[in-house]
Amino acid sequence: MTIKTIEDLFIHELSDIYSAEKQLTKSLPRLARASTAPELKEAFTSHLEETQGQVERIDQVVELLGIRLKRIKCAAMEGLVEEGKEVIDGVEEGPLRDAALIGGGNKVEHYEIASYGTLIALAKQLGYTDAVPLLVATLAEEKAADEKLTLLSEQLSKQMRAEKAA
Amino acid sequence: MTIKTIEDLFIHELSDIYSAEKQLTKSLPRLARASTAPELKEAFTSHLEETQGQVERIDQVVELLGIRLKRIKCAAMEGLVEEGKEVIDGVEEGPLRDAALIGGGNKVEHYEIASYGTLIALAKQLGYTDAVPLLVATLAEEKAADEKLTLLSEQLSKQMRAEKAA
Repeated sequence: MTIKTIEDLFIHELSDIYSAEKQLTKSLPRLARASTAPELKEAFTSHLEETQGQVERIDQVVELLGIRLKRIKCAAMEGLVEEGKEVIDGVEEGPLRDAALIGGGNKVEHYEIASYGTLIALAKQLGYTDAVPLLVATLAEEKAADEKLTLLSEQLSKQMRAEKAA
Repeated sequence: MTIKTIEDLFIHELSDIYSAEKQLTKSLPRLARASTAPELKEAFTSHLEETQGQVERIDQVVELLGIRLKRIKCAAMEGLVEEGKEVIDGVEEGPLRDAALIGGGNKVEHYEIASYGTLIALAKQLGYTDAVPLLVATLAEEKAADEKLTLLSEQLSKQMRAEKAA
Protein backbone atom coordinates (compact mmCIF):
# COMPACT_ATOMS: atom_id res chain seq x y z
CA MET A 1 0.00 0.00 0.00
CA THR A 2 1.39 3.37 -0.96
CA ILE A 3 -0.58 6.52 -0.43
CA LYS A 4 1.19 9.56 -1.83
CA THR A 5 -1.58 12.08 -2.50
CA ILE A 6 -4.88 13.13 -1.01
CA GLU A 7 -6.54 11.41 -3.97
CA ASP A 8 -4.78 8.15 -3.05
CA LEU A 9 -6.04 8.57 0.51
CA PHE A 10 -9.58 9.18 -0.74
CA ILE A 11 -9.40 6.04 -2.91
CA HIS A 12 -8.03 4.03 0.02
CA GLU A 13 -10.83 5.19 2.34
CA LEU A 14 -13.46 4.58 -0.33
CA SER A 15 -12.09 1.08 -0.97
CA ASP A 16 -12.19 0.39 2.77
CA ILE A 17 -15.82 1.41 3.17
CA TYR A 18 -16.71 -0.45 -0.04
CA SER A 19 -15.34 -3.60 1.57
CA ALA A 20 -17.17 -2.75 4.80
CA GLU A 21 -20.51 -2.29 3.02
CA LYS A 22 -20.03 -5.51 1.06
CA GLN A 23 -19.29 -7.44 4.26
CA LEU A 24 -22.37 -5.87 5.80
CA THR A 25 -24.66 -6.99 2.98
CA LYS A 26 -23.62 -10.54 3.87
CA SER A 27 -24.00 -10.01 7.60
CA LEU A 28 -27.36 -8.20 7.74
CA PRO A 29 -29.55 -11.14 6.61
CA ARG A 30 -27.94 -13.23 9.38
CA LEU A 31 -28.66 -10.47 11.92
CA ALA A 32 -32.28 -10.27 10.74
CA ARG A 33 -32.70 -14.05 11.08
CA ALA A 34 -31.12 -13.99 14.55
CA SER A 35 -33.45 -11.30 15.94
CA THR A 36 -36.80 -11.90 17.57
CA ALA A 37 -38.66 -8.58 17.70
CA PRO A 38 -40.38 -8.03 14.35
CA GLU A 39 -39.38 -4.34 14.43
CA LEU A 40 -35.72 -5.32 14.72
CA LYS A 41 -35.97 -7.91 11.96
CA GLU A 42 -37.54 -5.20 9.84
CA ALA A 43 -34.83 -2.67 10.76
CA PHE A 44 -32.05 -5.04 9.68
CA THR A 45 -33.90 -6.04 6.51
CA SER A 46 -34.60 -2.48 5.46
CA HIS A 47 -31.03 -1.49 6.26
CA LEU A 48 -29.89 -4.27 3.94
CA GLU A 49 -31.73 -2.60 1.07
CA GLU A 50 -30.26 0.73 2.08
CA THR A 51 -26.77 -0.79 2.22
CA GLN A 52 -27.17 -2.19 -1.28
CA GLY A 53 -28.10 1.34 -2.40
CA GLN A 54 -25.00 2.67 -0.65
CA VAL A 55 -22.80 0.21 -2.53
CA GLU A 56 -24.37 1.49 -5.75
CA ARG A 57 -23.63 5.07 -4.69
CA ILE A 58 -19.97 4.14 -4.24
CA ASP A 59 -20.04 2.63 -7.75
CA GLN A 60 -21.46 5.95 -8.99
CA VAL A 61 -18.67 7.90 -7.25
CA VAL A 62 -16.10 5.60 -8.84
CA GLU A 63 -17.61 6.12 -12.28
CA LEU A 64 -18.00 9.89 -11.83
CA LEU A 65 -14.37 10.34 -10.85
CA GLY A 66 -12.95 7.72 -13.20
CA ILE A 67 -11.03 6.10 -10.35
CA ARG A 68 -10.37 2.45 -9.58
CA LEU A 69 -10.95 0.97 -6.13
CA LYS A 70 -8.35 -1.20 -4.44
CA ARG A 71 -9.13 -4.72 -3.35
CA ILE A 72 -8.71 -4.41 0.38
CA LYS A 73 -10.61 -6.03 3.22
CA CYS A 74 -11.80 -3.67 5.92
CA ALA A 75 -10.29 -5.16 9.09
CA ALA A 76 -12.48 -3.15 11.44
CA MET A 77 -15.71 -4.38 9.83
CA GLU A 78 -14.31 -7.90 9.94
CA GLY A 79 -14.01 -7.45 13.72
CA LEU A 80 -17.50 -5.99 13.99
CA VAL A 81 -19.02 -8.84 11.99
CA GLU A 82 -17.08 -11.30 14.17
CA GLU A 83 -18.55 -9.68 17.29
CA GLY A 84 -22.03 -10.03 15.79
CA LYS A 85 -21.41 -13.77 15.31
CA GLU A 86 -20.24 -14.08 18.91
CA VAL A 87 -23.50 -12.48 20.07
CA ILE A 88 -25.54 -14.90 18.00
CA ASP A 89 -23.61 -17.86 19.37
CA GLY A 90 -23.44 -16.65 22.96
CA VAL A 91 -26.89 -15.23 23.63
CA GLU A 92 -30.09 -17.21 23.48
CA GLU A 93 -32.72 -16.01 21.01
CA GLY A 94 -35.08 -13.45 22.52
CA PRO A 95 -35.12 -9.92 23.92
CA LEU A 96 -31.62 -10.20 25.39
CA ARG A 97 -30.06 -11.21 22.08
CA ASP A 98 -32.02 -8.42 20.43
CA ALA A 99 -30.48 -5.94 22.87
CA ALA A 100 -27.00 -7.29 22.10
CA LEU A 101 -27.60 -7.17 18.34
CA ILE A 102 -28.74 -3.55 18.60
CA GLY A 103 -25.53 -2.68 20.46
CA GLY A 104 -23.52 -4.28 17.67
CA GLY A 105 -25.61 -2.49 15.06
CA ASN A 106 -24.88 0.88 16.70
CA LYS A 107 -21.16 0.14 16.50
CA VAL A 108 -21.40 -0.69 12.82
CA GLU A 109 -23.33 2.50 12.08
CA HIS A 110 -20.80 4.58 14.01
CA TYR A 111 -17.93 3.04 12.05
CA GLU A 112 -19.67 4.09 8.87
CA ILE A 113 -20.56 7.55 10.19
CA ALA A 114 -16.88 8.21 10.94
CA SER A 115 -15.82 6.79 7.60
CA TYR A 116 -18.22 8.82 5.45
CA GLY A 117 -17.39 11.90 7.53
CA THR A 118 -13.74 11.51 6.54
CA LEU A 119 -14.63 10.79 2.91
CA ILE A 120 -16.79 13.92 2.66
CA ALA A 121 -13.98 16.06 4.12
CA LEU A 122 -11.48 14.59 1.63
CA ALA A 123 -13.89 14.95 -1.30
CA LYS A 124 -14.44 18.61 -0.46
CA GLN A 125 -10.70 19.16 -0.19
CA LEU A 126 -10.25 17.54 -3.61
CA GLY A 127 -13.05 19.59 -5.20
CA TYR A 128 -15.10 16.47 -6.02
CA THR A 129 -18.30 18.52 -6.01
CA ASP A 130 -20.40 15.86 -7.77
CA ALA A 131 -19.35 13.12 -5.39
CA VAL A 132 -20.05 15.06 -2.19
CA PRO A 133 -23.90 14.89 -2.35
CA LEU A 134 -23.77 11.11 -2.89
CA LEU A 135 -21.58 10.65 0.19
CA VAL A 136 -23.71 13.08 2.20
CA ALA A 137 -26.85 11.11 1.31
CA THR A 138 -25.29 7.91 2.61
CA LEU A 139 -24.03 9.61 5.78
CA ALA A 140 -27.58 10.81 6.50
CA GLU A 141 -28.89 7.26 6.08
CA GLU A 142 -26.26 5.85 8.46
CA LYS A 143 -27.12 8.44 11.09
CA ALA A 144 -30.84 7.70 10.71
CA ALA A 145 -30.16 3.94 10.98
CA ASP A 146 -28.18 4.52 14.18
CA GLU A 147 -30.98 6.61 15.69
CA LYS A 148 -33.59 4.05 14.66
CA LEU A 149 -31.64 1.30 16.46
CA THR A 150 -31.28 3.45 19.58
CA LEU A 151 -35.02 4.20 19.65
CA LEU A 152 -35.76 0.49 19.18
CA SER A 153 -33.44 -0.34 22.04
CA GLU A 154 -35.32 2.03 24.37
CA GLN A 155 -38.64 0.59 23.24
CA LEU A 156 -37.53 -3.02 23.74
CA SER A 157 -35.99 -2.33 27.15
CA LYS A 158 -39.29 -0.76 28.30
CA GLN A 159 -41.05 -3.92 27.14
CA MET A 160 -38.55 -6.08 29.03
CA ARG A 161 -39.12 -4.07 32.22
CA ALA A 162 -42.89 -4.27 31.82
CA GLU A 163 -42.75 -8.04 31.30
CA LYS A 164 -40.49 -8.44 34.34
CA ALA A 165 -42.90 -6.37 36.46
CA ALA A 166 -45.95 -8.31 35.26
CA MET B 1 -19.44 -17.31 26.15
CA THR B 2 -22.89 -17.54 27.63
CA ILE B 3 -24.96 -14.46 28.23
CA LYS B 4 -28.18 -15.23 30.02
CA THR B 5 -29.19 -11.98 31.74
CA ILE B 6 -28.98 -8.25 31.10
CA GLU B 7 -26.28 -8.15 33.76
CA ASP B 8 -24.24 -10.72 31.79
CA LEU B 9 -24.65 -8.56 28.70
CA PHE B 10 -23.52 -5.47 30.61
CA ILE B 11 -20.44 -7.34 31.87
CA HIS B 12 -19.69 -8.60 28.38
CA GLU B 13 -19.93 -5.10 26.89
CA LEU B 14 -17.86 -3.63 29.70
CA SER B 15 -15.19 -6.32 29.24
CA ASP B 16 -15.15 -5.59 25.51
CA ILE B 17 -14.60 -1.84 25.97
CA TYR B 18 -12.05 -2.52 28.71
CA SER B 19 -10.06 -4.54 26.19
CA ALA B 20 -10.58 -1.79 23.60
CA GLU B 21 -9.31 0.93 25.95
CA LYS B 22 -6.32 -1.19 26.95
CA GLN B 23 -5.42 -1.79 23.31
CA LEU B 24 -5.77 1.93 22.71
CA THR B 25 -3.36 2.86 25.50
CA LYS B 26 -0.77 0.82 23.62
CA SER B 27 -1.66 2.28 20.23
CA LEU B 28 -1.91 6.00 21.09
CA PRO B 29 1.82 6.58 21.80
CA ARG B 30 2.56 5.03 18.38
CA LEU B 31 0.00 7.33 16.74
CA ALA B 32 1.52 10.37 18.50
CA ARG B 33 5.02 9.41 17.31
CA ALA B 34 3.76 8.87 13.76
CA SER B 35 2.10 12.28 13.46
CA THR B 36 3.78 15.46 12.29
CA ALA B 37 1.57 18.41 13.27
CA PRO B 38 2.33 19.33 16.89
CA GLU B 39 -1.41 19.84 17.56
CA LEU B 40 -2.09 16.28 16.45
CA LYS B 41 0.76 14.85 18.51
CA GLU B 42 -0.68 16.74 21.46
CA ALA B 43 -4.21 15.49 20.75
CA PHE B 44 -3.08 11.85 20.76
CA THR B 45 -0.91 12.35 23.85
CA SER B 46 -3.63 14.05 25.84
CA HIS B 47 -6.13 11.42 24.73
CA LEU B 48 -3.77 8.80 26.09
CA GLU B 49 -4.03 10.36 29.54
CA GLU B 50 -7.79 10.54 29.14
CA THR B 51 -7.90 6.89 28.09
CA GLN B 52 -5.93 5.86 31.17
CA GLY B 53 -8.51 7.74 33.24
CA GLN B 54 -11.29 5.90 31.39
CA VAL B 55 -9.70 2.56 32.23
CA GLU B 56 -9.68 3.64 35.87
CA ARG B 57 -13.35 4.58 35.64
CA ILE B 58 -14.11 1.07 34.39
CA ASP B 59 -12.18 -0.30 37.39
CA GLN B 60 -14.36 1.91 39.61
CA VAL B 61 -17.55 0.58 37.98
CA VAL B 62 -16.32 -2.98 38.53
CA GLU B 63 -15.62 -2.27 42.18
CA LEU B 64 -18.89 -0.39 42.73
CA LEU B 65 -20.95 -3.24 41.33
CA GLY B 66 -18.82 -6.05 42.69
CA ILE B 67 -18.63 -7.67 39.27
CA ARG B 68 -15.78 -9.45 37.53
CA LEU B 69 -14.75 -8.64 33.97
CA LYS B 70 -14.19 -11.37 31.41
CA ARG B 71 -10.88 -11.73 29.61
CA ILE B 72 -11.92 -11.07 26.05
CA LYS B 73 -10.14 -9.28 23.25
CA CYS B 74 -12.17 -6.65 21.43
CA ALA B 75 -11.97 -7.79 17.80
CA ALA B 76 -13.24 -4.51 16.40
CA MET B 77 -10.54 -2.48 18.16
CA GLU B 78 -7.99 -5.03 16.95
CA GLY B 79 -9.11 -4.21 13.41
CA LEU B 80 -9.02 -0.46 14.07
CA VAL B 81 -5.50 -0.66 15.52
CA GLU B 82 -4.46 -2.78 12.53
CA GLU B 83 -5.79 -0.10 10.17
CA GLY B 84 -3.78 2.50 12.09
CA LYS B 85 -0.62 0.45 11.53
CA GLU B 86 -1.40 0.17 7.81
CA VAL B 87 -1.66 3.96 7.63
CA ILE B 88 1.70 4.39 9.34
CA ASP B 89 3.33 1.88 6.99
CA GLY B 90 1.59 3.06 3.85
CA VAL B 91 1.64 6.85 4.09
CA GLU B 92 4.78 8.94 4.27
CA GLU B 93 5.20 11.12 7.34
CA GLY B 94 3.66 14.55 6.91
CA PRO B 95 0.30 16.26 6.44
CA LEU B 96 -1.15 13.38 4.42
CA ARG B 97 -0.36 10.80 7.08
CA ASP B 98 -1.78 13.20 9.65
CA ALA B 99 -5.04 13.34 7.67
CA ALA B 100 -5.15 9.54 7.51
CA LEU B 101 -4.42 9.19 11.24
CA ILE B 102 -7.21 11.63 12.07
CA GLY B 103 -9.63 9.55 9.98
CA GLY B 104 -8.60 6.46 11.92
CA GLY B 105 -8.92 8.35 15.20
CA ASN B 106 -12.48 9.36 14.35
CA LYS B 107 -13.35 5.70 13.75
CA VAL B 108 -11.92 4.72 17.11
CA GLU B 109 -13.85 7.45 18.89
CA HIS B 110 -17.07 6.44 17.16
CA TYR B 111 -16.59 2.82 18.20
CA GLU B 112 -16.30 3.98 21.78
CA ILE B 113 -19.23 6.40 21.51
CA ALA B 114 -21.47 3.55 20.37
CA SER B 115 -20.12 1.25 23.05
CA TYR B 116 -20.58 3.63 25.98
CA GLY B 117 -24.02 4.55 24.61
CA THR B 118 -25.03 0.89 24.88
CA LEU B 119 -23.43 0.53 28.32
CA ILE B 120 -25.31 3.57 29.67
CA ALA B 121 -28.61 2.21 28.35
CA LEU B 122 -27.95 -1.19 29.96
CA ALA B 123 -26.80 0.40 33.24
CA LYS B 124 -29.99 2.46 33.42
CA GLN B 125 -32.07 -0.61 32.70
CA LEU B 126 -30.27 -2.46 35.50
CA GLY B 127 -30.69 0.43 37.97
CA TYR B 128 -26.90 0.90 38.30
CA THR B 129 -27.41 4.52 39.34
CA ASP B 130 -23.87 4.98 40.69
CA ALA B 131 -22.23 3.58 37.57
CA VAL B 132 -24.18 5.74 35.10
CA PRO B 133 -22.40 9.07 35.85
CA LEU B 134 -18.99 7.42 35.40
CA LEU B 135 -19.98 6.03 32.01
CA VAL B 136 -21.58 9.34 31.02
CA ALA B 137 -18.37 11.20 31.88
CA THR B 138 -16.37 8.92 29.59
CA LEU B 139 -18.91 9.19 26.79
CA ALA B 140 -18.63 13.00 26.97
CA GLU B 141 -14.83 12.74 26.70
CA GLU B 142 -15.04 10.44 23.67
CA LYS B 143 -17.44 12.82 21.91
CA ALA B 144 -15.15 15.77 22.69
CA ALA B 145 -12.12 13.83 21.41
CA ASP B 146 -13.97 13.06 18.18
CA GLU B 147 -14.91 16.72 17.70
CA LYS B 148 -11.37 17.85 18.46
CA LEU B 149 -10.01 15.52 15.76
CA THR B 150 -12.59 16.75 13.24
CA LEU B 151 -11.69 20.39 13.95
CA LEU B 152 -8.00 19.56 13.61
CA SER B 153 -8.68 17.86 10.30
CA GLU B 154 -10.38 21.01 8.97
CA GLN B 155 -7.53 23.16 10.22
CA LEU B 156 -4.84 20.94 8.68
CA SER B 157 -6.65 20.65 5.35
CA LYS B 158 -6.85 24.47 5.16
CA GLN B 159 -3.11 24.59 5.76
CA MET B 160 -2.53 22.01 3.03
CA ARG B 161 -4.60 24.03 0.57
CA ALA B 162 -2.78 27.25 1.51
CA GLU B 163 0.63 25.59 1.05
CA LYS B 164 -0.45 24.17 -2.29
CA ALA B 165 -1.65 27.59 -3.46
CA ALA B 166 1.54 29.32 -2.30
